[in-house]
Amino acid sequence: MNPSNPPRHSATLLINAPDQKGLVAAIAQFLLQHNANILHADQHQDAEENRFLMRVEWDLAGFDLPINRFQAAFSPIAEVRQMQWQLHVSDKRPRMAVFVSQYEHCLVDLMHRYRIGELGCDIPLVIGNHESMRHLVEYNGIPFYHIPVSADTKAQAEATQLALLQEAAVDVIVLARYMQVLSPAFVAAYPNRIINIHHSFLPAFDGARPYHRAHARGVKLIGATSHYVTNDLDEGPIIEQEVTRVSHRDNVADLAEKGRDLEKVVLSRAVKWHLQSRVLSYNNRTVVFD
Amino acid sequence: MNPSNPPRHSATLLINAPDQKGLVAAIAQFLLQHNANILHADQHQDAEENRFLMRVEWDLAGFDLPINRFQAAFSPIAEVRQMQWQLHVSDKRPRMAVFVSQYEHCLVDLMHRYRIGELGCDIPLVIGNHESMRHLVEYNGIPFYHIPVSADTKAQAEATQLALLQEAAVDVIVLARYMQVLSPAFVAAYPNRIINIHHSFLPAFDGARPYHRAHARGVKLIGATSHYVTNDLDEGPIIEQEVTRVSHRDNVADLAEKGRDLEKVVLSRAVKWHLQSRVLSYNNRTVVFD
Amino acid sequence: MNPSNPPRHSATLLINAPDQKGLVAAIAQFLLQHNANILHADQHQDAEENRFLMRVEWDLAGFDLPINRFQAAFSPIAEVRQMQWQLHVSDKRPRMAVFVSQYEHCLVDLMHRYRIGELGCDIPLVIGNHESMRHLVEYNGIPFYHIPVSADTKAQAEATQLALLQEAAVDVIVLARYMQVLSPAFVAAYPNRIINIHHSFLPAFDGARPYHRAHARGVKLIGATSHYVTNDLDEGPIIEQEVTRVSHRDNVADLAEKGRDLEKVVLSRAVKWHLQSRVLSYNNRTVVFD
Amino acid sequence: MNPSNPPRHSATLLINAPDQKGLVAAIAQFLLQHNANILHADQHQDAEENRFLMRVEWDLAGFDLPINRFQAAFSPIAEVRQMQWQLHVSDKRPRMAVFVSQYEHCLVDLMHRYRIGELGCDIPLVIGNHESMRHLVEYNGIPFYHIPVSADTKAQAEATQLALLQEAAVDVIVLARYMQVLSPAFVAAYPNRIINIHHSFLPAFDGARPYHRAHARGVKLIGATSHYVTNDLDEGPIIEQEVTRVSHRDNVADLAEKGRDLEKVVLSRAVKWHLQSRVLSYNNRTVVFD
Repeated sequence: MNPSNPPRHSATLLINAPDQKGLVAAIAQFLLQHNANILHADQHQDAEENRFLMRVEWDLAGFDLPINRFQAAFSPIAEVRQMQWQLHVSDKRPRMAVFVSQYEHCLVDLMHRYRIGELGCDIPLVIGNHESMRHLVEYNGIPFYHIPVSADTKAQAEATQLALLQEAAVDVIVLARYMQVLSPAFVAAYPNRIINIHHSFLPAFDGARPYHRAHARGVKLIGATSHYVTNDLDEGPIIEQEVTRVSHRDNVADLAEKGRDLEKVVLSRAVKWHLQSRVLSYNNRTVVFD
Repeated sequence: MNPSNPPRHSATLLINAPDQKGLVAAIAQFLLQHNANILHADQHQDAEENRFLMRVEWDLAGFDLPINRFQAAFSPIAEVRQMQWQLHVSDKRPRMAVFVSQYEHCLVDLMHRYRIGELGCDIPLVIGNHESMRHLVEYNGIPFYHIPVSADTKAQAEATQLALLQEAAVDVIVLARYMQVLSPAFVAAYPNRIINIHHSFLPAFDGARPYHRAHARGVKLIGATSHYVTNDLDEGPIIEQEVTRVSHRDNVADLAEKGRDLEKVVLSRAVKWHLQSRVLSYNNRTVVFD
Repeated sequence: MNPSNPPRHSATLLINAPDQKGLVAAIAQFLLQHNANILHADQHQDAEENRFLMRVEWDLAGFDLPINRFQAAFSPIAEVRQMQWQLHVSDKRPRMAVFVSQYEHCLVDLMHRYRIGELGCDIPLVIGNHESMRHLVEYNGIPFYHIPVSADTKAQAEATQLALLQEAAVDVIVLARYMQVLSPAFVAAYPNRIINIHHSFLPAFDGARPYHRAHARGVKLIGATSHYVTNDLDEGPIIEQEVTRVSHRDNVADLAEKGRDLEKVVLSRAVKWHLQSRVLSYNNRTVVFD
Repeated sequence: MNPSNPPRHSATLLINAPDQKGLVAAIAQFLLQHNANILHADQHQDAEENRFLMRVEWDLAGFDLPINRFQAAFSPIAEVRQMQWQLHVSDKRPRMAVFVSQYEHCLVDLMHRYRIGELGCDIPLVIGNHESMRHLVEYNGIPFYHIPVSADTKAQAEATQLALLQEAAVDVIVLARYMQVLSPAFVAAYPNRIINIHHSFLPAFDGARPYHRAHARGVKLIGATSHYVTNDLDEGPIIEQEVTRVSHRDNVADLAEKGRDLEKVVLSRAVKWHLQSRVLSYNNRTVVFD
């Protein structure tokens, strides 16, 4: 069998703070005091914004601070330095919901990665605005909810969705070619926690029918972009992009076919990086730590 | 919905002949006499080998030569010019078998493409040397045959496989990470019609455990290669290759994970090109017509 | 020494015609009558536009129609089928002018390719709106003309440029990061014969300061685009595009540095393809024959 | 003008140590004590080798430890933790020699990058085993030494080269398609400080005539690899690799032409990363910090 990584027993801290001396030392010292062994760390100074971004992951074996007391112990250090911080513990698998319409390629891809353990998350539910994906989802042992959406029923549909998400204690939502625009209230409930895939190399061809427009413009590469959803359509912080070559021989249907392979791989990378706490978003941009 | 190409009603001719004057004219003239409308044509002169390779596809609407009389009508032209030629008619969908072991990623990918009509072929059967893929295959409505293979039973297993393939009138066999070496007799039964995926950028890391060896060598890119199977392991004509970037952060399991995405896309491209009669193999190399 | 291709003695015909039966046969028959040996041929049907595009290259050895009588002999065939056609003969090297401002990277790159024979063209002159590139150009044995351009002098500057271009019998003009917009009259004098490089993945970030805007948007890939110049800024037919990966670590200066490598390679590919008569432009798109 | 990064006034520390708790804290604490502002830091644990690799760069403005006293101050910390470490100060520009034979493309590329300030190094000399590059080198204001090498004169030639290198206080040597094998004694004088470019995707096609062999094998991608020189030809630690697509239309000369663009960009990336102290070599592999 091919090797696969054993489950980690680690904690990851993401930090966004005003640039200042002593940040790394303070955090490293804090971790050392609690007997942490640092596995990976990555820091980045954004000179233009005068901010310091950091990701540090340490082994929980030997770490002598119980996770439920981390906040109390770390907050004094964080507050004096005005840090925004998030802690993620590998033992607590993130809970991810998937929203889908009628294109199945991204959903098939995510289901497979989930099934073979590549994602490292739980998927307590999939929500579709059509019935057509039920079979595939249930085949993978995941509950499927069919919630139709129309202009008239959108508010009610979102209320139903939100109730399901909360009941399932969902941490992150993936729009796997979900062809509906979410309301500001919905987006506000999951800030930087809704991941979309757009089938163009943004900011080119934002909005509708990007493959048609790419074909009309005669581009030589097409792309896909995964980003966090904000209230500005297709304008949220970009997590990942990729392109592939096309030629004059490709009509719009060929672009769509080539694009499906891009969409799958771009969305899955963004999802994995988010689930591994590698993505830090600020100023409508992302830092993706290796 | 995204656009998809309507089924074609066309014929494709692949030709490999000694280079000579008048080849294109003779073929174009023959097609015109029978009222063909050429959709695409591509010719290539291999100056080193003094050969002329050609692919021409024409619309069957209006073509006044019944396909069952094509051979009789075209042979005189072909013989005088020593052409090797193959004719493929879009109405007759190729029949493809898939062989699989215990890795499911390539199989999942092919099943999905098959289901949404991307491959343009029939899959009358999947053969596995383990039982584990049965559920997935049968979910897609395809018969699954479990034929275990050991050193002792290999000859008998291949005989069983060949009988199934012949009964199903299979045109092409795809080894979707099938972890068995085929015997010369088996290979000889399907020359240039068995497509394998190898998880390295051949000729680097041919043979066993390519991800381990890539990691040990410290390469900065890993690859995958799809090729026709010959009796020389991993040395058949290459159809397609692709690479992706890796870094010092990636251990062997990470390479295997990144590699899966390569394997899927490389194998599926090779399969599609073969099914579309785009691949012409000679001198242990391939011409892949756009 | 590395191998290099010997100079060809061939002719290339580019054809754009309404789709119709018998086109390939007519052309192949015409060439055969004159004893041509076809080296490469490539045809493409654009079903949406109902057009047939074709490139055919043949060996001039043995071709019994003197080139100066080609037009007379071929026109009857072309007219009845409403072909637009161009003939290029390898013995007549295209004559290329380069326009440059103060960025030297694309110019250095083109000069080097020219010097080692990669371009297969003559460069009778380089025109700069600054004096700074004179040394480099003259080092390569090419006359340099410094023609400053301001809003007031633009008309006069273009008149001077056009006179120089005509005197030098220039076939194609390359804008190697030439930071001036050409007037409609100038563009009209060289339709589909002025090649520009824009430092973004068009249509994203057309116009000014694309690297600044790419950085502000937080894209994960930057691009470059080479296209024919039309009167709509950055909207002409695209010949070639390429991208490279960037990260949060890259500031605008880093993007510009990475982008220089893209600009050089994208521009040089477009220039070579144009010089080899591989590019056919119609409907604000290009066909680039392999 | 395009933006370019202002010269930095910073110091960079590269560390390779046995994995252990407290490493990051010790270094961060040391830097903080001397009032350093960390600009970037990156740490990597190699679990298989049980090593911890680290790069940290800090602003020298405000750093209160004179650089000439760094070693004395830092050594106690390093020794107790068995660190191997290197310090690089941006004010002290590295001194780079270039060795060249008769292919000029990599040399032209490096000269241009040097001239526009992209490399951030001094180039006190270029050594060629042919006379042909003199003009180009001297045009760039750099002394050129013609030192012919034959089997008989190799020992003497290397002695002359080493004397020149030492006199010029060279830190790093770039073999820009230098077609000579260096002796073990020469290599030993510059361990992990001689950078070569090989025109294949190593380990495929190591040794002679890689483009010929790539063509014969029918690969669909060709590559280039930059690596540190060791006594095993083409087997040193890989710094960077890249590939580009080729097709059946490309003969060996076409591969060489496409390959030149790869060689330039791969070598220049490796050189820049080395000059920026981003490359740490151990176990015949490299860590390249972003």
